[in-house]
Amino acid sequence: MQINGKSVFNGIAIGRLFVYNKAENQIKRKKVTDVRKEIERFQNAREESKKQLSELYHKALKEVGEVNAAIFEVHQMMLDDLDYEESITNMITAQEVNAEFAVASTGDNFSEMFAAMDDDYMRARAADVKDISNRIITVLQGENHSIIQSEEPVILLADDLAPSETVQLDKSKIISFVTRHGSTNSHTAILARTMNIPALIGVDFPEDADGKMGIVDGQEGVLIIDPQVSVMEEYTAKKEKEDEEKRLLLELKGKENITLDGKKINLYANIGGVGDVADVLANDAGGIGLFRSEFLYLESEDYPTEEEQFKAYRTVAENMAGKKVIIRTLDIGADKKVDYFHLDKEENPAMGYRAIRICLDSKEIFKTQLRALYRASYYGTISIMFPMIISVGEVKRIKEIIREVKTELDEAGVPYKDVELGIMIETPAAVMISNELAKEVDFFSIGTNDLTQYTLAIDRQNPKLDRIYDAHHPALLKMLQMVIENGHKEGCWVGICGELGADITMTEIFLKMGLDELSVSPSMILQVRRKIRECRIEG
Amino acid sequence: MQINGKSVFNGIAIGRLFVYNKAENQIKRKKVTDVRKEIERFQNAREESKKQLSELYHKALKEVGEVNAAIFEVHQMMLDDLDYEESITNMITAQEVNAEFAVASTGDNFSEMFAAMDDDYMRARAADVKDISNRIITVLQGENHSIIQSEEPVILLADDLAPSETVQLDKSKIISFVTRHGSTNSHTAILARTMNIPALIGVDFPEDADGKMGIVDGQEGVLIIDPQVSVMEEYTAKKEKEDEEKRLLLELKGKENITLDGKKINLYANIGGVGDVADVLANDAGGIGLFRSEFLYLESEDYPTEEEQFKAYRTVAENMAGKKVIIRTLDIGADKKVDYFHLDKEENPAMGYRAIRICLDSKEIFKTQLRALYRASYYGTISIMFPMIISVGEVKRIKEIIREVKTELDEAGVPYKDVELGIMIETPAAVMISNELAKEVDFFSIGTNDLTQYTLAIDRQNPKLDRIYDAHHPALLKMLQMVIENGHKEGCWVGICGELGADITMTEIFLKMGLDELSVSPSMILQVRRKIRECRIEG
Repeated sequence: MQINGKSVFNGIAIGRLFVYNKAENQIKRKKVTDVRKEIERFQNAREESKKQLSELYHKALKEVGEVNAAIFEVHQMMLDDLDYEESITNMITAQEVNAEFAVASTGDNFSEMFAAMDDDYMRARAADVKDISNRIITVLQGENHSIIQSEEPVILLADDLAPSETVQLDKSKIISFVTRHGSTNSHTAILARTMNIPALIGVDFPEDADGKMGIVDGQEGVLIIDPQVSVMEEYTAKKEKEDEEKRLLLELKGKENITLDGKKINLYANIGGVGDVADVLANDAGGIGLFRSEFLYLESEDYPTEEEQFKAYRTVAENMAGKKVIIRTLDIGADKKVDYFHLDKEENPAMGYRAIRICLDSKEIFKTQLRALYRASYYGTISIMFPMIISVGEVKRIKEIIREVKTELDEAGVPYKDVELGIMIETPAAVMISNELAKEVDFFSIGTNDLTQYTLAIDRQNPKLDRIYDAHHPALLKMLQMVIENGHKEGCWVGICGELGADITMTEIFLKMGLDELSVSPSMILQVRRKIRECRIEG
Repeated sequence: MQINGKSVFNGIAIGRLFVYNKAENQIKRKKVTDVRKEIERFQNAREESKKQLSELYHKALKEVGEVNAAIFEVHQMMLDDLDYEESITNMITAQEVNAEFAVASTGDNFSEMFAAMDDDYMRARAADVKDISNRIITVLQGENHSIIQSEEPVILLADDLAPSETVQLDKSKIISFVTRHGSTNSHTAILARTMNIPALIGVDFPEDADGKMGIVDGQEGVLIIDPQVSVMEEYTAKKEKEDEEKRLLLELKGKENITLDGKKINLYANIGGVGDVADVLANDAGGIGLFRSEFLYLESEDYPTEEEQFKAYRTVAENMAGKKVIIRTLDIGADKKVDYFHLDKEENPAMGYRAIRICLDSKEIFKTQLRALYRASYYGTISIMFPMIISVGEVKRIKEIIREVKTELDEAGVPYKDVELGIMIETPAAVMISNELAKEVDFFSIGTNDLTQYTLAIDRQNPKLDRIYDAHHPALLKMLQMVIENGHKEGCWVGICGELGADITMTEIFLKMGLDELSVSPSMILQVRRKIRECRIEG
């Protein structure tokens, strides 16, 4: 039996299936006589839940980073919510019901209330309020279910997994995640990527799959239940090849990124949060070529403070221990919306009010980030890069603001280093005037995703245009060549941090063009390194 | 007193204000005894209204062209609508009321029904049904109001003007239109452009303006009521200068588009419909550089037939009497939506499914247009140009389809000429590969509007980005130079048909770059001619 889904991480897993059923805790409504005692039971369970969440938070902080751990802080805060608490205690008092029932009913009510809200952030809270209610109920029931009982690692099948559930799982027992719901960026998906195991979402598996043998093909996005012997053999061979591949790649750790004829390339990693640094180091990247700072803004309910940003940047800089960390300033707008920025709905957001355009209009927000960056620069090797540049004027304005920031830090006696400054080349305008821009900065990082979409006038997220979207379009290649030549003439180094950088069918072409750096997702580092080591540039 | 509005056509008008009040015909409900006679009154008035509309249609056809006249055909059809007719006769019968009241009530009801509909086209019918109802009522009341009673021409002020009203007006009596409502593309605006008189929309004038002196400043978008003597003098002087300017420009009619040092330029006009041809000839354009064929689709309720298209193209070709007519194939999508194409809502429509992308997917629709174009080619000098090209492959595919069309016409014995083929250069991709594209076509026409927005990654309709939108961006100028050089190397002539073409501060730069053609709105032809005649290219 074969069921299709959407892959959120590649790879092959072969093992027994384990269907995880949320302890939906068939709550029975019971009459209680001692209301005061029942309220005390609830309050104790609430305290115990908060304690658990605090522990989970610290565990998650270590395992998946601050941003992904933040959810447990949110849950703790929700447990302290007065409306939530009063709703439960009132229900116990007025209806003389058991605490479990009052918690479950309130959880359902609040969840529905959140789900009906306009605001995306509030809607997302619907799942959280159910999650905390389930946690209290579990405590009340005194259940202490160990989730996976099998000795062998399993392929975990679930409707969906709440953050509290994924963290409670014993990860050494899981070789793949398969869920019915969830999105590409759900917690399960993030966890799978962090654990480097295949994962599928949108798979409508039957309940009776539990205990059967299964295969997850993260390449094809397929779950196979009770595979035939021939299929099993085929996948066992594939899996062996994959493992061998991984082993060979691991041998490349510690090796140089050098072509057959001796040209060395900087091979860096793209990351989206502090939690990804472990992955960068595990894959032996030479540095971070693109650190998307917007995660600090996207996962926050208000403008992140200078201190919050400083800590995040410093952590990354310190963890990278002197290796280069290129941090891109805030790139929101387009498909990345943040409520508290109060951005208008736009007809064509990809060509709209975004990134540096917002920063140059909101100088204080921009300065806060720059101050945090310069303060953090003292603790490692930070470079700063600016997105969506279309004119020399913009770069000059940025440099003016940086001068202000430095003066302020000097006056306050705060130490900082003189960091390398660069810009993203991701608009055709920046390509055409790259000769002028090169005089203003230290490096160019070509954002091939946006550059391609503007050059071809194709929204790359529009499925109707997939057929004509051509990531290798000759116009783009000419632009790359132009940018590299113009950059080198003025002493700028030039890299690529878009998805095209990880396209190993293009690596040799890029190197022949004279590219100095490639920044790719951590999991692609070793593959690109192998490709570089097979290339010959001259002749 | 000065009131701001939005200008839809430039110029200055000075004269007495005339506030036009729609004969809202305070309809009184009256009991009738002879129901049959009342129905007969209604039927007679309906017939008379149809007769009037037929006359208006033929009058409009001559004055503003087929597309703008079509509204009167729609009105005639609406008068024949059975639901509408029955609603009125039923009301007369059931309620024993006068025909005027039944028509007004039905008009209101139908209008509200249309206004509540989802479909844009149907919503627009709300105003039409009121319009035909008012017409019947006017006939019923036997009023024969001559609208403008003043001897002198007036500045006409109105809430809004229905098509039937604008056509009924004695135009020799009107020197400007000012309306409270209406859009840039409303009938009033179109009429003002056709009449070449200043017009404003969105002006909230007071009712007591009637009879006062007024000034319309179409440059600033201002209506001045009861101007002070000094203001009056200032505007009288401005108006004289404007008239003198117009007179001088008119002297340029029949003159060559030639620089001081003898280089001749082709100066053509951009038009949006058959009705604009008179304007092209009146302004002495050397041809039509951009005929936007989408008007045939936008103003239609279903795919226009080959015959309808053929007639429109032939009319233009014949009226231009051998002068060049460059017709651009269908450019819908982005902000130009057509219901019957059933296009999906897109996140970034400007970089979406549009123009040639739709045509190459919908081969039969495309072939219908190409057949109509080739058939019309026999009657004049037609060139065909294709929008939104990003690859050589697209052009090759287009040429294949054209070969099919020609074969079919040959087999059917239909005469046609071998027309010049060109492409719009309006994507950065087309610029970068213009060397390759030039081998495939006879000419390039640079669409500066779209090219600028993709190059700068700025939606030009997004008001938040006005400040950084730079129509003279150096990236764009480099692209123009690149396209001209690449085109000339392969024997292509190169023109500009975007708004930048009419920017006379740039004319000399364009000519020095080697541009062969400029296509601008008809009203700009003589100004650009004057500028060309003042330029010196060499040295």
